[in-house]
Amino acid sequence: MWLHTSCDLAFDIEVPTPFILMLRPRSGAQQWVAREEYKLVPSVPAFEFTDDYGNLCQRLIAPPGAFAVHTAAEVMTADQVDTAPGAAFIEIQNLPDAVLVYLLPSRYCESDRFGQMATEITADQQPGYNQVSAIVDWLQRSIRYQPGSSDIPVSAVEVNTRQGGVCRDLTHLGMALCRSLSIPARMVVGYLHALEPMDLHAWFEAYVGGRWYTFDATQDELQGGYVTIGYGRDAADVAIYNQFGPAVYPTAQKVSVERIWEDD
Amino acid sequence: MWLHTSCDLAFDIEVPTPFILMLRPRSGAQQWVAREEYKLVPSVPAFEFTDDYGNLCQRLIAPPGAFAVHTAAEVMTADQVDTAPGAAFIEIQNLPDAVLVYLLPSRYCESDRFGQMATEITADQQPGYNQVSAIVDWLQRSIRYQPGSSDIPVSAVEVNTRQGGVCRDLTHLGMALCRSLSIPARMVVGYLHALEPMDLHAWFEAYVGGRWYTFDATQDELQGGYVTIGYGRDAADVAIYNQFGPAVYPTAQKVSVERIWEDD
Amino acid sequence: MWLHTSCDLAFDIEVPTPFILMLRPRSGAQQWVAREEYKLVPSVPAFEFTDDYGNLCQRLIAPPGAFAVHTAAEVMTADQVDTAPGAAFIEIQNLPDAVLVYLLPSRYCESDRFGQMATEITADQQPGYNQVSAIVDWLQRSIRYQPGSSDIPVSAVEVNTRQGGVCRDLTHLGMALCRSLSIPARMVVGYLHALEPMDLHAWFEAYVGGRWYTFDATQDELQGGYVTIGYGRDAADVAIYNQFGPAVYPTAQKVSVERIWEDD
Amino acid sequence: MWLHTSCDLAFDIEVPTPFILMLRPRSGAQQWVAREEYKLVPSVPAFEFTDDYGNLCQRLIAPPGAFAVHTAAEVMTADQVDTAPGAAFIEIQNLPDAVLVYLLPSRYCESDRFGQMATEITADQQPGYNQVSAIVDWLQRSIRYQPGSSDIPVSAVEVNTRQGGVCRDLTHLGMALCRSLSIPARMVVGYLHALEPMDLHAWFEAYVGGRWYTFDATQDELQGGYVTIGYGRDAADVAIYNQFGPAVYPTAQKVSVERIWEDD
Repeated sequence: MWLHTSCDLAFDIEVPTPFILMLRPRSGAQQWVAREEYKLVPSVPAFEFTDDYGNLCQRLIAPPGAFAVHTAAEVMTADQVDTAPGAAFIEIQNLPDAVLVYLLPSRYCESDRFGQMATEITADQQPGYNQVSAIVDWLQRSIRYQPGSSDIPVSAVEVNTRQGGVCRDLTHLGMALCRSLSIPARMVVGYLHALEPMDLHAWFEAYVGGRWYTFDATQDELQGGYVTIGYGRDAADVAIYNQFGPAVYPTAQKVSVERIWEDD
Repeated sequence: MWLHTSCDLAFDIEVPTPFILMLRPRSGAQQWVAREEYKLVPSVPAFEFTDDYGNLCQRLIAPPGAFAVHTAAEVMTADQVDTAPGAAFIEIQNLPDAVLVYLLPSRYCESDRFGQMATEITADQQPGYNQVSAIVDWLQRSIRYQPGSSDIPVSAVEVNTRQGGVCRDLTHLGMALCRSLSIPARMVVGYLHALEPMDLHAWFEAYVGGRWYTFDATQDELQGGYVTIGYGRDAADVAIYNQFGPAVYPTAQKVSVERIWEDD
Repeated sequence: MWLHTSCDLAFDIEVPTPFILMLRPRSGAQQWVAREEYKLVPSVPAFEFTDDYGNLCQRLIAPPGAFAVHTAAEVMTADQVDTAPGAAFIEIQNLPDAVLVYLLPSRYCESDRFGQMATEITADQQPGYNQVSAIVDWLQRSIRYQPGSSDIPVSAVEVNTRQGGVCRDLTHLGMALCRSLSIPARMVVGYLHALEPMDLHAWFEAYVGGRWYTFDATQDELQGGYVTIGYGRDAADVAIYNQFGPAVYPTAQKVSVERIWEDD
Repeated sequence: MWLHTSCDLAFDIEVPTPFILMLRPRSGAQQWVAREEYKLVPSVPAFEFTDDYGNLCQRLIAPPGAFAVHTAAEVMTADQVDTAPGAAFIEIQNLPDAVLVYLLPSRYCESDRFGQMATEITADQQPGYNQVSAIVDWLQRSIRYQPGSSDIPVSAVEVNTRQGGVCRDLTHLGMALCRSLSIPARMVVGYLHALEPMDLHAWFEAYVGGRWYTFDATQDELQGGYVTIGYGRDAADVAIYNQFGPAVYPTAQKVSVERIWEDD
């Protein structure tokens, strides 16, 4: 399906503030970006680079006063998300080099502390895709999903204690459980068509059966309409913006995803 | 200045034909892409990847029949090109790792065969920027620039023999001469505002004084208005399309660059 | 100075256990590896790859029974560590792309929580090298250094609460403080000549004045004799081994660093 | 099998001469480096980096006078080279990103000029491995192999005209033919046990059936005992040394490969 996505951010800046933004979706195996727009108001110099995960990031210094970022895109994405019950666990020897980093613990995924728990949750499951499915089922049963967003990210250990969280939190706990079973898991931040309430979204992918598969514990059923903005180990890698110096919060943030019908 | 660039390609395909396209300008140190459009007709699946030089490339299989590629962008680029007479030659020990590959000979730049000639052309010049300037001056005096394009690229050795060529050919010879003096040189393909006749353009950058500087032997004076599509060692790396299997030629190719006036 | 380094690890494996090892020092800007040895007993198949930080890593599956890893090297390293009081803070716009990742929070460095504290510790300091020096001074005054090693790494927040820790812990806290001031900081794991008691060591580098400088809060004075094994964001990236599945602990670990006198 | 390899180079330097060396074999999927030695006499500062192909390279400035490089290694390598008659041709859509660069023409492989010829040589062959085998058979029948080395590399077009060449030349022509059929091919430089006369050796790998396979037109039958030093697109990428400034030739070059018998 073709989607029109947009994200508008507005800030009120007091002192010149360095930002790293990650708001430009890339064309890739899963999606094709046919039109795109990226506007800074005022139009300060910005420098784009590719980070270690392949994401396009923009760095700039926001000047004092009102500062706004407007991004929009028209993206072709899959109508259906691929699933593969039974897809095999991949031994570490056979994982591609680039996937290995997604096995390790990270800022919000203390996977080194979930071995026992993951083993229990996935007992009797065939190693691989089915283990990840069992983890997602367990998240849906055990961790209360609170739509919307929260300012302060918490780590998987805290999410597990609180028994609830936003999409980012469920994702962190899901990934920590996967990695503790030696299943590579990476975080995805992006858009999801028909998300309620509309906002940026986070989910994860697990590497089983020789490729990455999408998992999302916040949705009863996996539907199409995912648009990826960035990949990373966890929320520390895929913040849509990182800001340095005295904390600045958005005065407005507006996200929209609309279906469009092209005939070409 | 803000420029609106576009490139339209049309092909008449007989058998399913793999393509690697390089037509998406990136935001970078020199330019900011504020709007962009990339359309394939018919809309076949395409997969984007980043090559070793940091370029965004798209691969796809064009189906039999008419096949068209339409790309357009709104890009902010410098009004003036930076120059730096006297900028120093950088010893190999002090070159950044990523620059070293641009010292080596490549498909169309047999830099291993130009040592003597480069030494003569740059005699009495201070090592660094001034050597490159002397090479560009020599190209302008000695190699006839034939605007327009040619189907079959020739290498620096052949360009030197023919004493003439299109922008790509002058670029190859210029780079071969630079590299033979241990000055890294890389090819740029892109758009140039007010190029006559309008077409895609090729020029080169040389690494002196700790950064890349733009050189263009086809222009009497360096003006602003350059938009980069891709970087590489030579034309083999930065073809706007590579096509595999039986040769296919464009039935139409249209390039435009227009100045736009934004107020934001 | 020339150093002979060695690290021997022994394990008692119960079930086939995947390992990722990081024990091969690389030649680089700071050191030259003239001789090297890397032995696995029994000699299982191992596959080497380069991680995102440029470290050479080896992955393998250790078979049940005794499993030993022996590595040794002869390395030329600097007699003196470079210092640069007054070296300038680098604005985010001017940092090399590859350095940016070392600004972000990571598993053991919650730099997003130390802004206030870092500002107080470095009050009145000139931005850059001197801020990092002030942080190291503060660590030496305020955090009790406990030589030796500990099994469970703790994060910067916990180190700050405990007011004490091993070399890894002081490093994490130092890096979290630097990053909260927008100074890139990376962890180094390796050998240090004349360390008491001898063991693997951890320290950090901060990026100021256009390059990386070494800092080590565990040493009263910076001496030469550092040999780098790996770089990373924190201990999660530079574990000398990561092991998957049921936890396995070394039955023996022996580290030695000896000065050698070559005449060539 | 375990092999002891060594390469000694000696030069007589007149003016300070920048070098990029590529003489350090890496542990990888195919081989394990258990011991290694790398000595420069005199012991000048050298800086190691990883090039775009993953090779470890060393750069340095050789001082006037005698300059020698001694490298040696103990390497475990396969007793048998894998072969896979019938392994399938991989469509461009399904090639890994990192493989795509090996489809393009390069300095010594003008693959854009061999389409017709490759089609004839491989007529009636199943696409993939069998096409590469047919190319190797054709090389063995049609191009005279001249053991030893030659100073000036020639390109595939010239090799085809001369109907003869050293190992490097046969490799270039073989790769140009593969690439013209959209089969990725990369050059390997390294050691081969029992090569007659002993010297450094060059061969190539083709990507079919989802992985790289070894091909060597200079050997009647593929035997084990290959040790890789470097990979690249052609000889321009994998020169064991590149030297800048006035040409310098080795005054001595000695290569040895001996079988060793370890019991550990």
